[in-house]
Amino acid sequence: MSQQLVDRLFHELEAIPLIDPHTHINPHAAASKSLADIMGYHYYTELAHSAGMPRERIEETGLDPKEKVHRLVEWLGPLENTVQFSWLMEICGAFFDFHEERITADNWEALYDHAAKRMVAPDWELQVLSTSRLEQVFLTNDFDDPLADFDSSRYVPCLRTDDLVFHLAKPAVRQRLAKATGCEAGTAAELVKAIGKLFEHFVKRGARACAISLPPDFEPSPVERQAVDPILKSLHHKHEPSADELATVSKFVFWTLTEQCAERRLPFDLMIGVNRRVYEEGVYQGQDLFDQRTSLIQYRRLFNAFPQVTFPISVLAQTSNQELVSYSWIFPNVVTNGHWWYSNIPAYIELDCRSRLEAVPQTKQIGYYSDMYKLEFALPKFRMYRRILASVLATDFVVARRWSECRAVDLGRLVLRGNVERIFGKTD
Amino acid sequence: MSQQLVDRLFHELEAIPLIDPHTHINPHAAASKSLADIMGYHYYTELAHSAGMPRERIEETGLDPKEKVHRLVEWLGPLENTVQFSWLMEICGAFFDFHEERITADNWEALYDHAAKRMVAPDWELQVLSTSRLEQVFLTNDFDDPLADFDSSRYVPCLRTDDLVFHLAKPAVRQRLAKATGCEAGTAAELVKAIGKLFEHFVKRGARACAISLPPDFEPSPVERQAVDPILKSLHHKHEPSADELATVSKFVFWTLTEQCAERRLPFDLMIGVNRRVYEEGVYQGQDLFDQRTSLIQYRRLFNAFPQVTFPISVLAQTSNQELVSYSWIFPNVVTNGHWWYSNIPAYIELDCRSRLEAVPQTKQIGYYSDMYKLEFALPKFRMYRRILASVLATDFVVARRWSECRAVDLGRLVLRGNVERIFGKTD
Amino acid sequence: MSQQLVDRLFHELEAIPLIDPHTHINPHAAASKSLADIMGYHYYTELAHSAGMPRERIEETGLDPKEKVHRLVEWLGPLENTVQFSWLMEICGAFFDFHEERITADNWEALYDHAAKRMVAPDWELQVLSTSRLEQVFLTNDFDDPLADFDSSRYVPCLRTDDLVFHLAKPAVRQRLAKATGCEAGTAAELVKAIGKLFEHFVKRGARACAISLPPDFEPSPVERQAVDPILKSLHHKHEPSADELATVSKFVFWTLTEQCAERRLPFDLMIGVNRRVYEEGVYQGQDLFDQRTSLIQYRRLFNAFPQVTFPISVLAQTSNQELVSYSWIFPNVVTNGHWWYSNIPAYIELDCRSRLEAVPQTKQIGYYSDMYKLEFALPKFRMYRRILASVLATDFVVARRWSECRAVDLGRLVLRGNVERIFGKTD
Repeated sequence: MSQQLVDRLFHELEAIPLIDPHTHINPHAAASKSLADIMGYHYYTELAHSAGMPRERIEETGLDPKEKVHRLVEWLGPLENTVQFSWLMEICGAFFDFHEERITADNWEALYDHAAKRMVAPDWELQVLSTSRLEQVFLTNDFDDPLADFDSSRYVPCLRTDDLVFHLAKPAVRQRLAKATGCEAGTAAELVKAIGKLFEHFVKRGARACAISLPPDFEPSPVERQAVDPILKSLHHKHEPSADELATVSKFVFWTLTEQCAERRLPFDLMIGVNRRVYEEGVYQGQDLFDQRTSLIQYRRLFNAFPQVTFPISVLAQTSNQELVSYSWIFPNVVTNGHWWYSNIPAYIELDCRSRLEAVPQTKQIGYYSDMYKLEFALPKFRMYRRILASVLATDFVVARRWSECRAVDLGRLVLRGNVERIFGKTD
Repeated sequence: MSQQLVDRLFHELEAIPLIDPHTHINPHAAASKSLADIMGYHYYTELAHSAGMPRERIEETGLDPKEKVHRLVEWLGPLENTVQFSWLMEICGAFFDFHEERITADNWEALYDHAAKRMVAPDWELQVLSTSRLEQVFLTNDFDDPLADFDSSRYVPCLRTDDLVFHLAKPAVRQRLAKATGCEAGTAAELVKAIGKLFEHFVKRGARACAISLPPDFEPSPVERQAVDPILKSLHHKHEPSADELATVSKFVFWTLTEQCAERRLPFDLMIGVNRRVYEEGVYQGQDLFDQRTSLIQYRRLFNAFPQVTFPISVLAQTSNQELVSYSWIFPNVVTNGHWWYSNIPAYIELDCRSRLEAVPQTKQIGYYSDMYKLEFALPKFRMYRRILASVLATDFVVARRWSECRAVDLGRLVLRGNVERIFGKTD
Repeated sequence: MSQQLVDRLFHELEAIPLIDPHTHINPHAAASKSLADIMGYHYYTELAHSAGMPRERIEETGLDPKEKVHRLVEWLGPLENTVQFSWLMEICGAFFDFHEERITADNWEALYDHAAKRMVAPDWELQVLSTSRLEQVFLTNDFDDPLADFDSSRYVPCLRTDDLVFHLAKPAVRQRLAKATGCEAGTAAELVKAIGKLFEHFVKRGARACAISLPPDFEPSPVERQAVDPILKSLHHKHEPSADELATVSKFVFWTLTEQCAERRLPFDLMIGVNRRVYEEGVYQGQDLFDQRTSLIQYRRLFNAFPQVTFPISVLAQTSNQELVSYSWIFPNVVTNGHWWYSNIPAYIELDCRSRLEAVPQTKQIGYYSDMYKLEFALPKFRMYRRILASVLATDFVVARRWSECRAVDLGRLVLRGNVERIFGKTD
């Protein structure tokens, strides 16, 4: 297989305007304001900390952004091999005319200053969107987000529900819910009503998905309202809930959310497999890991109970990918969704991308999402994915199955863009 | 590594006449009668259903074969990327002179009619066998199959035992057993005797293997007859058995089967890892999935207790392949067997084939079986495997280890053909 | 990607002098004395046995070395495909001028005799070290090894602790401990003291690591001394300990060892995932296997409790590699360590090597160790690894990320050599 063929396919894929179906963008501050916003991404802080940089050096309160970059640059050396470092270099090249091999003690400050000058442009956000061919960006909104004062045709709201499912026992979460909905949620019926109000609000503002991240041992099942009522009541009286009670509430809320997705015709993004706060002394957002011993069989009841709800599924453990392929091949309501976090490196993307293209209907694959916090990251992350996709299309389709290049690009377009539009529905 | 080298090896491998050591062929209707037999293969119905085709459209009672194909063609588009679709195209090319890129609303009927004309030939079955270089085909026979009226030197009987191990509590199964053996199986001793009679019948008719598929949590162990007697007795009195009682009977029957394999010198094909009826509303044969959390350590007692029985093992989860490699490398009685079902796609075959060729004695590897229901599928499925095998032999042996091409082909011949003959024994 | 590029990188990597950070070398008999020492490596005996050679033929008491080789040669044919066989051929080529394609009934004796002549040279050990560019070799020493009479700047002691953690209930182990330390270890306090003495002895003799292999279900946690005292006391009175009591002692000893590592600033090599004696009738060292259902989450407490201890981690199951990558990427004290045993074959090394180079800081990766029992094996094993490393560096760094070859080789040097020196500390 010739490199020229891969390059041709890659350039065709690069020309496709993107919808990014999962990010953590703040629509009120979507682009970076300085290199500190970029290098403050948890990938760099956690890798630098892993390589030996003390957390206190990174998270000192009141730390000046420029000084933060200065300090992180000292620890970039050990990370130069990582693909995450290559994203940084790609950003600096594409947006800041920086084409050195490395960021060092000698060149970082000029880079910082030059970047700052570019970012201060009033249209910086639009420049980034345009350079990255980003047309639409899905958000991850707290359930009590007012969703106000941003263009929801560009920044598409999604209802993130981790707090509701896993932290409803916390008074602060229940207060936020009460404030957002006007319901006290002292009974299961009231809780259902409150959740309904959240969905109503989100759908009205153009939300296109409900989303949640789930621990490896979660197993959804329906729960009777009568089983939940006494727990909600005792929570109201500051009773400390047992692990069993917490699990009951979690399952009840999760099932209720799915019922709402069915009613409102929203896909429910499941991001399966994360254990939170495994490394307790880690940097911010650099504390979570996983247990590979999980299975989609835990979701059999859910998938059977809600044939009308589409579940775009991301798995954290690469060892879960074959199950994801197989469940998507069998269940009409299960679709593959991107390459998530610890699985989002080329060695695993390549294998996972190949297996999905070989065995899941092409209409049921959402190729990629960036998961980014700042707009600048769509470009290098999608580029990484598109390089791999181009290579798989070249090898497995153009060469092995003698497809025309045009047909291969059509397949690429479908998983990159077409399926995002169809599965989440167009916003007008 | 040059493509020419791979092509040369592939053509050598293509010339090797095949024995297919595991299929679901009906020897009384081995070849297809129409395209509906081919497109009715569960891979197409389940993928079309997964892509959105209602089950009722596929499984309407009394549906005319041509209309069935007509309907399925409407849903082929979403499946064109899958390797299963490529099998279909390869069949249509090799057997029906069809060389279009796609099967569409415009061309399907001409294809259907042309295929029907070819298939009506009285020697169609022989044509397929000859074009596919298929010399022998192993069957999967129900335990009460009379095994009559077919050429058992071409179609080799194998005793399939799922019903006995997992469904003996059903009156219908016990009645079938009684009818087939003349034993009522009301006690453990009678059950053992009945099973012995089944083996006697199968061996007399040239059976070369006992076979079973097993759920991920199955763990074989010996069971005392005294523990089984009261359960069999209560079954006789229509008592509904508990889960524990069912498990006891399953283990007892499984161990008894293995004892029979030891006595009759039959290999025992274990197909490990399937959960049945996970998607209950799925199409026929499109409802089963798996839980990757399984281990061959569950079989340690079995492998140690029966050194004289050869266990050709297939694993459903690709994540089980390394265990299979390692257990085959250590246990003399464990051999690797093909690439099964959800693992039977190029991305996984390639990795699994490489690891087996690198670490399992070459005499202990059964390269591939088709698992087909209709003869026409041997050609594209074995061809897929042989392409991958050729590529691995080229890369890992001819290039990396400087083997002659001839020696590499010899290795390919052994895993494709020689080992099947030696491990299952020649039928005369 | 051109083969020439890979070859150039490979030759640069071959030029790097090695420190082998984990072996089972006996420093008093480091090199082989005959081909029987080489072919007696458990890889050959277990694979030959797996292929059909009776254990008694291999392990007959008083068997003459030459006759042992004679017998093993009869069973080499079935193993010729394995990568382990390729190590043997590489040894015979590099050290004994043997360049046939195979070792056969016709040529083995000449090879045996020629090898014997070479090995009898008084400087054979030095020749092997020099040809292999081996500068330093880490050992695996029993806790009661006197560590006397060898050059510990060449052969670096490491304290192996399996016996202490898992077999302290055996009187023989407690007697060895008493003899080595002068402490009876009848209480937890005494046991801690005895373990302290072992560390003192090892550190004084230049030990650079503590090491242990662990079963898949092990989960370390601290244990109160009061919980251990009665168990130690009852052991003293020949009481047969329960499984729970054994587990309590294991955890206590393991935690104590880690405390000693913290105090003495020794890395603690964890080799995770082996089940011992799974195949009870197997040949010596050919009885162990594994259960892939294990997770590094079992070590979360340990990693959090000992931030000052470096844990170089090897995993037996290839399916554990992504967890290892992710835990090393997050925890500062976790580093990746080589490719162990059943994962030490090219198909898995390649995937594991790629994923580590893509996502773990380059300073936190120990590329490879040989695990050898005889010096001759460093050459083919490291060569296998360096071929794969060269290929990954070529593809993923020089081609995909446009690194200079020089920079790619620097990365290779770091994981092959530099990190070993830094992580384990230089011996003078």
